[in-house]
Amino acid sequence: MKFGGTSMAGIERIRTVAARVKREVEAGNQVAVVVSAMAGETDRLVGFCREASALYDPREYDVVVSSGEQVTSGLLAIALQAIGVPARSWLGWQLPIHTSDAFSRARIGTIDTEALDASLARGEVAVIPGFQGVAEGDRITTLGRGGSDTSAVAVAAAMKAERCDIYTDVDGVYTTDPRIVPRARKLARVTYEEMLELASVGAKVLQTRSVGLAMKENVRVQVLSSFTGDDAPMADTLPGTMIVGEEEITDVERQLITGIAHDKNEAKITLAAVPDKPGAVASVFGPLAEAGINVDMIVQNIAHSTGSTDVTFTVPSADLARSLDVLGQAKATIGYDKLVHDTRVAKISVVGVGMRSHAGVASTMFTTLGERGINIQAITTSEIKVSVLIEEDYTELAVRVLHTAYGLDAEVEAA
Amino acid sequence: MKFGGTSMAGIERIRTVAARVKREVEAGNQVAVVVSAMAGETDRLVGFCREASALYDPREYDVVVSSGEQVTSGLLAIALQAIGVPARSWLGWQLPIHTSDAFSRARIGTIDTEALDASLARGEVAVIPGFQGVAEGDRITTLGRGGSDTSAVAVAAAMKAERCDIYTDVDGVYTTDPRIVPRARKLARVTYEEMLELASVGAKVLQTRSVGLAMKENVRVQVLSSFTGDDAPMADTLPGTMIVGEEEITDVERQLITGIAHDKNEAKITLAAVPDKPGAVASVFGPLAEAGINVDMIVQNIAHSTGSTDVTFTVPSADLARSLDVLGQAKATIGYDKLVHDTRVAKISVVGVGMRSHAGVASTMFTTLGERGINIQAITTSEIKVSVLIEEDYTELAVRVLHTAYGLDAEVEAA
Repeated sequence: MKFGGTSMAGIERIRTVAARVKREVEAGNQVAVVVSAMAGETDRLVGFCREASALYDPREYDVVVSSGEQVTSGLLAIALQAIGVPARSWLGWQLPIHTSDAFSRARIGTIDTEALDASLARGEVAVIPGFQGVAEGDRITTLGRGGSDTSAVAVAAAMKAERCDIYTDVDGVYTTDPRIVPRARKLARVTYEEMLELASVGAKVLQTRSVGLAMKENVRVQVLSSFTGDDAPMADTLPGTMIVGEEEITDVERQLITGIAHDKNEAKITLAAVPDKPGAVASVFGPLAEAGINVDMIVQNIAHSTGSTDVTFTVPSADLARSLDVLGQAKATIGYDKLVHDTRVAKISVVGVGMRSHAGVASTMFTTLGERGINIQAITTSEIKVSVLIEEDYTELAVRVLHTAYGLDAEVEAA
Repeated sequence: MKFGGTSMAGIERIRTVAARVKREVEAGNQVAVVVSAMAGETDRLVGFCREASALYDPREYDVVVSSGEQVTSGLLAIALQAIGVPARSWLGWQLPIHTSDAFSRARIGTIDTEALDASLARGEVAVIPGFQGVAEGDRITTLGRGGSDTSAVAVAAAMKAERCDIYTDVDGVYTTDPRIVPRARKLARVTYEEMLELASVGAKVLQTRSVGLAMKENVRVQVLSSFTGDDAPMADTLPGTMIVGEEEITDVERQLITGIAHDKNEAKITLAAVPDKPGAVASVFGPLAEAGINVDMIVQNIAHSTGSTDVTFTVPSADLARSLDVLGQAKATIGYDKLVHDTRVAKISVVGVGMRSHAGVASTMFTTLGERGINIQAITTSEIKVSVLIEEDYTELAVRVLHTAYGLDAEVEAA
């Protein structure tokens, strides 16, 4: 079971979490709980580090920010004991959860489960702080923001858990954002690959890394709401969304398209009149890659008669200023004429493992958007996804018409 | 160097601490710094534990409350690096600082200094969270409130440090409370024994345990003000108070009386008409000892002609309710007639190693108080201390007249 910062924000909520854990224990399950810091606490601690030095040592940053989860894991253990559930906390260095030494953004390696297994066998609930681990040389590491989901999946994998239940602010994964489409449907099951595409294009239910890890380790992940009250049914009967391997999806369940995602956090950059010669594209994207900037959609127009070409691509909005800086410095090397950028764009994606065996998914998308006069500025596709870049103002309209076009609308509006 | 919670309350103050540490480094010293949590933070964390359960597991309590010092040690390391001083934090479990497994009130055993010594030899400042250690089985412990002074002395002892500088809210140890006697003098030196007596009777400069440890390990402790500003002279020239062994006090410095302490936190209990027979006293103090209540001053009146006696003693005010409860339950066993108590009492103590070789100290005290009409309710003495119990309202008067009587008044008032 994994609980986020909102569920841990204050002792009253921690008591609610304890009650929920108790019900799982009483149902005969052995339980390990991974917890986040109290909502707002990590921001407070990160703020201290930044105030102390803009160029803070990431090793010391990890010492500071890992304390938030340390506090909540101790408190949940106390709250569990208070209602008669034997429990103890296990800090990252105590298990240990071995990680790389990439401080502040470490990767989990192996997790020693010997002590943990023995503790569960004694009937104790293990409370494990998310987001933290330990690197060689016994130094505390953290996994980067949102890393607690990854901790939960990694612990579930190491323990060969039957299930990894992730309690969040939402009660499952929907065919699209219900705030845009009231008739969005909650998905009973979704595959890892679909979830990865849905998460990485803006369906912010789970951290992308955690889904990738779940896929690699074949951990069944259930997304559940932490706000269904104390008298809610047991987790395994709650109507959340189960994230599973493709083989678990039956033919009856299989849809052509699973969901529609949108992402307004991309910015478009166009380099006009880049010399159309070998190495030109490398001279554009090499410096961006060196600066650690992820380029997403790329469109290269056909060459002008002048022997030059326009190159258009997207970067995360947060990296736009840095990207312009990098490209400005490389102007002579690249040899472009003009650089223009646009943050008023949105990426709309249709996602589904079903499209592997069906042609026509992309064409339905282009036709549907075209009929509404929505201009497509760029296109990317993967095996299970088609994404287009459009003007930001059309985001909601595009999502709604596509949701209907692919037959995803529920018969009644969600509550 | 040890800095308390007020010195660590916020990044600006942590920067001031870093600047002070830097000056010591630039003076050619190798420095380990022991830090407290930010002022108020430990109270916040203790509050969480109490709210989670009145009967919290002290092992989990230690996980929670130790995080306060973890945060400040990381932040001070960052602040030091920011001004060009190589530094790293060493948590209790990293050194490690071995302690007993008396969670929430553990005792320091040994401290491994191999890694620490190597770090200092590389020119790094070691930043060590106070108040915490690790017990067998790799579980975090804390030393009880105010334990950071003890951590500092223990680290200084383990490292064979030349000096342990404790920065506090006061700028040294005075002959008495300057708020009561404006002509109180700051002591340049005081012996461990005197400091122990002064601290345990209410001169709240250092935690008593830390002074006892300093005496046992022969650590030279200097008490300094942390509020003398950034441009203050180097610590070793600041006019703080040095706490040393008696052999370091020269004959010229040696005073008959070093200081006058007062303590309003005791309560007086009188059991009237206790049977005057063997075992009666044991039946009074046995149950109190079992309840962990420290009885201080004891006066047993001469037996009444009825074959009974009155027993008067003091306990810490905080333990009064529990003491009355214990004694109430033991009434039949003890066989006393009446139980009365009084919290409006104060203990006044004159302290000084010089009194070992001088008679007449106690008699001066009794005469001086008697001349002012101050009634003495109980007396205890040790080799270097005479204490009397008086009515609380006379506390300030008693301290002032004794300060003058023993020739302690400075020629001018302190600033």
